[in-house]
Amino acid sequence: MTKSNYASSGVDIDAGNRAVELIKDAVRSTYNSSVLAGIGSFGGLFDVSVLKEMKSPVLVASTDGVGTKVKLAASAGRYRGIGHDIVNHCINDILVQGARPLFFMDYFATSKLDPEQTADVVTGMAEACRESSLALLGGETAEMPGVYQAGEFDVAGTIVGVLEREDILPRPNIKAGDVLVGLKSSGPHTNGYSLIRGVFANTSLDTFVPELNSTLADVLLAPHRSYYALLHPFLSEVKALVHITGGGFVENIPRILPETLDAKILSGSWSVPPLWKLIQQTGDIAADEMYRVFNMGIGMVAIVDENSVSKIQTLIPETTFVIGELVKGSKKVQLVN
Amino acid sequence: MTKSNYASSGVDIDAGNRAVELIKDAVRSTYNSSVLAGIGSFGGLFDVSVLKEMKSPVLVASTDGVGTKVKLAASAGRYRGIGHDIVNHCINDILVQGARPLFFMDYFATSKLDPEQTADVVTGMAEACRESSLALLGGETAEMPGVYQAGEFDVAGTIVGVLEREDILPRPNIKAGDVLVGLKSSGPHTNGYSLIRGVFANTSLDTFVPELNSTLADVLLAPHRSYYALLHPFLSEVKALVHITGGGFVENIPRILPETLDAKILSGSWSVPPLWKLIQQTGDIAADEMYRVFNMGIGMVAIVDENSVSKIQTLIPETTFVIGELVKGSKKVQLVN
Repeated sequence: MTKSNYASSGVDIDAGNRAVELIKDAVRSTYNSSVLAGIGSFGGLFDVSVLKEMKSPVLVASTDGVGTKVKLAASAGRYRGIGHDIVNHCINDILVQGARPLFFMDYFATSKLDPEQTADVVTGMAEACRESSLALLGGETAEMPGVYQAGEFDVAGTIVGVLEREDILPRPNIKAGDVLVGLKSSGPHTNGYSLIRGVFANTSLDTFVPELNSTLADVLLAPHRSYYALLHPFLSEVKALVHITGGGFVENIPRILPETLDAKILSGSWSVPPLWKLIQQTGDIAADEMYRVFNMGIGMVAIVDENSVSKIQTLIPETTFVIGELVKGSKKVQLVN
Repeated sequence: MTKSNYASSGVDIDAGNRAVELIKDAVRSTYNSSVLAGIGSFGGLFDVSVLKEMKSPVLVASTDGVGTKVKLAASAGRYRGIGHDIVNHCINDILVQGARPLFFMDYFATSKLDPEQTADVVTGMAEACRESSLALLGGETAEMPGVYQAGEFDVAGTIVGVLEREDILPRPNIKAGDVLVGLKSSGPHTNGYSLIRGVFANTSLDTFVPELNSTLADVLLAPHRSYYALLHPFLSEVKALVHITGGGFVENIPRILPETLDAKILSGSWSVPPLWKLIQQTGDIAADEMYRVFNMGIGMVAIVDENSVSKIQTLIPETTFVIGELVKGSKKVQLVN
């Protein structure tokens, strides 16, 4: 189907070519000296001679979408943030294994190709790639009338990163007494949007919400942040990282727990941003359910030795929260008020 | 959004979990000793210590979809072939640069998750991965009502392969007099399906077509074949490869031509399979247009030195066709009767 990286498939070849014209410079701005071929070649070529200097190089790859946040973006006509969302979501997903991202590949498909809209999404991807120093090496844009609903689009991305085998997170020395340090989220990130859209189904996205001091669109479409620059320099200080994505605290934290430990989370240990109270009240959602769906203001959790807590909190150049600790148990989350 | 590799997003978590249950074994059957972590981890981990033995390792990555062939598959209720399509399309796309595939990542999204359907597609992917010895390292399954039309789905894939920098195709010694050797396609592969669906809009897919000795569905949904096993052992004998995808001969062959050469194709030099005549007659399509949209029975073209033609035709264990040669020109295709 593809006639080039960033080729378009579907009916309107001209729209596809125009989209490529519009995104070319943004994509090239992410290239570094490792990129041997990008836009226009069959596949992207990425020099990895640097891996020869490593002891035991391991590639990490992750594929993801951004869920029905794309629907909200489509109705608001705001596309660039979705580019940040998909890239940063992927960066965070491999960061929790300890990886440095090398390159990103995207897929953008829609009912009818609008070159400016496509360019907006891909420009957002390129911006996010530059911020975390990875190359937007290639991708595919597809026009598929009859598959996507009119006016709708979807986006998916694949990230490839690298790390030394001995540095893979989580580390085996996780133990009771280790402390959970939480980092702020920038909003719902890319999770819980089916629920969010239901809750605000009868509210215009342009509505200014006084308690948020913002329009609903601005808060709900805030891009998923990347924790790479913040955390990668200090990974040697952490035992594990947890990206709080779909399933919230309850489903994500157990993924790095040994069979014999629970995570005890003190729900009052950070100030839950007002958006979550608004969602909970408007949607009449049980508190438990909120922690099972949303990040509640904490987008990333670092598990650190109790003796390293103040060091890591000093190293990370923003406010972080001690939100709990590991205790004897059975791979569960205990939410404590 | 993802809570694991092969996690599901969307509304129906149970359907997602059941899909994962169904595909687990198929996915694992593609693993080799390089796969350190797959299903269930945040990202797939792939040991690349072997790259340390290479002189100048280069990664090749390509992302693609299969276009509106998914719509045809959905109406026929036949999903497994789509898994072969996406994997083999990606394999061929990086084979033309000389790469050996390492691993594949998939994205599957639909309006409403049907675990059996998802399992069928992913099982097809796993089968294709096994056939060409690459790992299905991870992926994402998303349920997105309101984005996809009812009953429709889309699939995208990203492949990562590797090669020595000095072995990148096309080689610089391409010259006038080099010969084009064509390899058979297994059908329309993944191209021209918007046109095909239009041509057969009023014909049931179950129709038995005497001149094809087959039902329409069997011929139109024949999986895209992989040329990896056939060609990779003999890449040292070829100067370039061209994957005949969207844009047909006319747009794909020029991609590997230097500015001063044309490719002269003798259109009578291979026997065009009856499907193409049926499409052309039924749709009343100009001959030129056919070569601009479809592969016309030739899915891959190898450019070889005139002195190597008989050797490569002997090495490749199936019938191949000398379909033309390179002549002085300006990076175009000349179709000659």
